[in-house]
Amino acid sequence: MTTAADLLITNGIVMTMDPHGRVIENGAVAVCGEAIAVVGSAAEVGSMAARETIDAAGGIIMPGLVNTHTHAAMTLFRGLADDLPLMTWLNEHIFPAEALLDADNVYAGTLLGCAEMILSGTTCFCDMYLFEDAVARAAKAAGMRAVVGEVLYDFPSPNYGPIQKGFDYTRHLIDAWHSDPLITIAVEPHSPYLCAPDLLTEAADVARKHRLPLVIHLSETHKEFHDIQDKYGATPVGHLAHLGVLGANLLACHCVVLDDDDMDLLQQHDVKVSHNPESNMKLASGVSPVADLVERGVCTGLGTDGCSSNNNLDMFAEMDMAAKLHKASRLDPTVMDAATVLRMATIDGARALGLDTITGSIETGKRADMIVIDTRKPHLTPMYHPASHLVYAVGGSDVYATVINGRVLMKGRRLMHMDLEKIMADAWQIAKTIRGD
Amino acid sequence: MTTAADLLITNGIVMTMDPHGRVIENGAVAVCGEAIAVVGSAAEVGSMAARETIDAAGGIIMPGLVNTHTHAAMTLFRGLADDLPLMTWLNEHIFPAEALLDADNVYAGTLLGCAEMILSGTTCFCDMYLFEDAVARAAKAAGMRAVVGEVLYDFPSPNYGPIQKGFDYTRHLIDAWHSDPLITIAVEPHSPYLCAPDLLTEAADVARKHRLPLVIHLSETHKEFHDIQDKYGATPVGHLAHLGVLGANLLACHCVVLDDDDMDLLQQHDVKVSHNPESNMKLASGVSPVADLVERGVCTGLGTDGCSSNNNLDMFAEMDMAAKLHKASRLDPTVMDAATVLRMATIDGARALGLDTITGSIETGKRADMIVIDTRKPHLTPMYHPASHLVYAVGGSDVYATVINGRVLMKGRRLMHMDLEKIMADAWQIAKTIRGD
Repeated sequence: MTTAADLLITNGIVMTMDPHGRVIENGAVAVCGEAIAVVGSAAEVGSMAARETIDAAGGIIMPGLVNTHTHAAMTLFRGLADDLPLMTWLNEHIFPAEALLDADNVYAGTLLGCAEMILSGTTCFCDMYLFEDAVARAAKAAGMRAVVGEVLYDFPSPNYGPIQKGFDYTRHLIDAWHSDPLITIAVEPHSPYLCAPDLLTEAADVARKHRLPLVIHLSETHKEFHDIQDKYGATPVGHLAHLGVLGANLLACHCVVLDDDDMDLLQQHDVKVSHNPESNMKLASGVSPVADLVERGVCTGLGTDGCSSNNNLDMFAEMDMAAKLHKASRLDPTVMDAATVLRMATIDGARALGLDTITGSIETGKRADMIVIDTRKPHLTPMYHPASHLVYAVGGSDVYATVINGRVLMKGRRLMHMDLEKIMADAWQIAKTIRGD
Repeated sequence: MTTAADLLITNGIVMTMDPHGRVIENGAVAVCGEAIAVVGSAAEVGSMAARETIDAAGGIIMPGLVNTHTHAAMTLFRGLADDLPLMTWLNEHIFPAEALLDADNVYAGTLLGCAEMILSGTTCFCDMYLFEDAVARAAKAAGMRAVVGEVLYDFPSPNYGPIQKGFDYTRHLIDAWHSDPLITIAVEPHSPYLCAPDLLTEAADVARKHRLPLVIHLSETHKEFHDIQDKYGATPVGHLAHLGVLGANLLACHCVVLDDDDMDLLQQHDVKVSHNPESNMKLASGVSPVADLVERGVCTGLGTDGCSSNNNLDMFAEMDMAAKLHKASRLDPTVMDAATVLRMATIDGARALGLDTITGSIETGKRADMIVIDTRKPHLTPMYHPASHLVYAVGGSDVYATVINGRVLMKGRRLMHMDLEKIMADAWQIAKTIRGD
């Protein structure tokens, strides 16, 4: 056993989320450098010498949550417009606001999103937006693990201009960040309805060549489903199959409207899915058949989507929603049980991003991405089953500490390395511009 | 104008929830004794002399939330059993645990529920359970406003024994609490499927005679809907109509399964509805047509139901769920907009309980039941529309202060008059008995 640790988290119930689903009732985790060194009982591991110790005080020690789909900088548009028909919302509110963005604003909005995510227990997020170099820099500055990719579509981008410049920009991101310990670059065509077939195949080629994730919005709405059928004679999933884009590195976000053949294709090609129930509900997209996907063994993570359609980045709220929505939709209280949903928000999310050897569970050798839940609160008292509490009762504000890559980023609800007052003041300043004050 | 106040809440956006929906951008509220004395601008009202001042620091000042349906003592069973078929859950987990209850346990569980509610911004709740005198005493000790009634059904109760003793117990509650400033007694037959017609009509008579609310579970599941049709040749709502039980003092909880005639009846008789989306989803009961009820003008409040089917008492989470569920269910993003849902959780909830002259809005002369939201947090930054934040982004832990009947019960996340450590220790002790430790 290692005899001295850099960080020791002790005196908690360790939900490892490892392949055996091991739970250590009174456990501890020792961290050396960026990695998890030892996982075991508090009696054994908790007595190790350590430079820094976090006392979980009988709470829960678990892997940090993985948000598989968001647009972090959209924190700037939180609550700007709600309860509107989709096209009114987009054309009259979101697109005009996005026209005001530049790299500095995206950096500021992403930093705000990172502060919110760290405070609510998310340690890794997958982002799709404009000016993604700024997103990568913000995540890095915040100390967060992130998969980032510039959104690619047929029309000119406010960032890179015409689409070929979009591929140049993506290649620049790949070069600039290829050896980073926290940042992974992805190739991110927006969707089948905003990307021509050539764009989609080129994006898939770039991702394949560099062994990177390929991230796309797929079959989010009934309108998309029917429009793609009209245009290409295939469902959105079928269309991607014909183009040779389906594969184990593809992360398909939303997947609300799927027929049986679509689900067969996703399963056969080992496509990963990001389920975003709060956004799908708020935008009235519908209910993804995600319980069917999980039953088929399709690897499915959870995502919040952007703050303009949620309106927060709290993955605990997303878990609660995912667990409940499908019970009501299928009139079956046994689907999407707490253990399943908890895996979606941790190890399955990590696998969906191709990061399951790095994060998503508490196992020796993995990077130390962990959170501690303070359960000494009336709404978490008493506790019979930790998994039940994590899905049905805990909120993001119950996270006591957040550790990413071995570094303590939040403890006692205080961000250790971020100037929160300045981050919030900057966001307010941008909001004034958006409001036209 | 009154020149000295007992309590002044200032420097916040006042969401009055009054009939005009008045919002005061930089406002203040002065309280004298138990009542709201002045509502106005911070410049005007905020300069009043006051014995105690709460600085809202630019946050939101609003009426306390009204939880129209819960079983507060079921905090003791939070997370005891989830994700099970309804009958397994009830027969193998909940009923055996309830058999262990007595007045002391119910008092302890209710006190725990009150602590959770006060910390998450609920100032008034409507309870149905066993040993309701203990519930009333716990609510009173906690300083909460509550509508309480002993559950009445055909079989012997662990509290009162045979049903006629149940009516005796109810009459005792009415006598004991009739002039209390915080506690209102209700008459509470469980449901059409657990109460014979005679029980229902007698309950309605007692409620009418004493001018009290009549509270019932109604049309919660498809099974109930069909069973009642088979037994009485009418839907659950129709059955109550035939018995003469429908009226403006009736609060019908759940109302998941309704046909058009049922909705007509509820509307014609001015019946009040308690909508409990999280419980209905978790138990896979289905989706109440509550958007239709609201469109018809049926007064509808929100409720969390008990902690064993939610698993918390956070009314902010309930608002978020109510706003999103029906958008997905009706594939219409405009239904259940933030303003509507906010009314359901405040003034409409108060009206559903017959307490709308007392609580549910910030108006001169009403009892001072108010909360303050701290918005200086990343997940509430920036803020364009307070109502949007309250429904889609705020959680119970963002409540900074809770005032009930003019008394500051919580400030800075600290309960001022409750021994939280003892309350949680007592609940843990009872949980050990339930677990059989």
